[in-house]
Amino acid sequence: MSRMLAILRLGHRIGRDKRVTTHVALVARAFGADKIFISSKDAGLVRSVRSVVARFGGDFEIEDGVEWKRLVKTWTGTVVHLTMYGQPIDEALPKIPKENVLIVVGAEKVPPEIYELADFNVAIGNQPHSEVAALAVFLDRLLKGAGLRRIVRGRLTIIPSERGKSVVESREYASTRR
Amino acid sequence: MSRMLAILRLGHRIGRDKRVTTHVALVARAFGADKIFISSKDAGLVRSVRSVVARFGGDFEIEDGVEWKRLVKTWTGTVVHLTMYGQPIDEALPKIPKENVLIVVGAEKVPPEIYELADFNVAIGNQPHSEVAALAVFLDRLLKGAGLRRIVRGRLTIIPSERGKSVVESREYASTRR
Repeated sequence: MSRMLAILRLGHRIGRDKRVTTHVALVARAFGADKIFISSKDAGLVRSVRSVVARFGGDFEIEDGVEWKRLVKTWTGTVVHLTMYGQPIDEALPKIPKENVLIVVGAEKVPPEIYELADFNVAIGNQPHSEVAALAVFLDRLLKGAGLRRIVRGRLTIIPSERGKSVVESREYASTRR
Repeated sequence: MSRMLAILRLGHRIGRDKRVTTHVALVARAFGADKIFISSKDAGLVRSVRSVVARFGGDFEIEDGVEWKRLVKTWTGTVVHLTMYGQPIDEALPKIPKENVLIVVGAEKVPPEIYELADFNVAIGNQPHSEVAALAVFLDRLLKGAGLRRIVRGRLTIIPSERGKSVVESREYASTRR
């Protein structure tokens, strides 16, 4: 469907935002995006996310210290900014071209220019909630659930179960992969 | 559709989990749930969530210091535990009775009994990501987006916009309401 589906996390503050930004990055990966760009430097965050990719598989990428304005201005595709002030997702989604989508999610404050630079400002409900939730629901609706149904092969694979936890560790995969 | 739709947040740690649990609570409210129960005491968390309700409206409730095991055992309806180890949501959702649903979301570790006490253990993808995202997507799918489309009247109302921020403050509402 999309050649490149990426996320830009704006306004991440080292320390204070680490857990929430980690959730944003893991949601991006689990719901089918290819890459996340972080507008500040945070080596610990990058390490955490790469460690999940190393264990659970896939090719998801993270890049920190990105000049966000240049990225947004030179993006060849659609830029969608998720914000509670935007137009409702039910109205916006049919209008959004689906090739090469960059989804922008802010922390508490975002630079006002992003409202002008984005092609679409989209609200996942016009109530305060969470950028983690907004990103998940947007990706779920954009990909019609297909991101979640993908099989990612990794060293650790969870086997769906009605009760309890079932995890398979693949030595073979680990040895060919690392 | 449901007479009562509530969330139980397990394993919240004061301080460390405040931001993520706040996101969980605001997602519950914004996506159409009635109430959140927190299994530990956290007055600051309760205050933050009530302050959003006071400003943005609705009847969403939060209760902390809840004896979670008693709540789950005496719940007259369906108990759904969201976990990456569970059965896929695409398979589970048609089987879940929709009246009086209690949705359980854990922090990093959950007591193993919850896998037995829940009627359903449901995975929003079998990959690690975020309880905030899992709750949002589950509520969005359960209510088929209707939670998001509800109009909540409050002192502050956001007007959906293609560009910029538009917020209306209703004095009248404020004075009749508080």
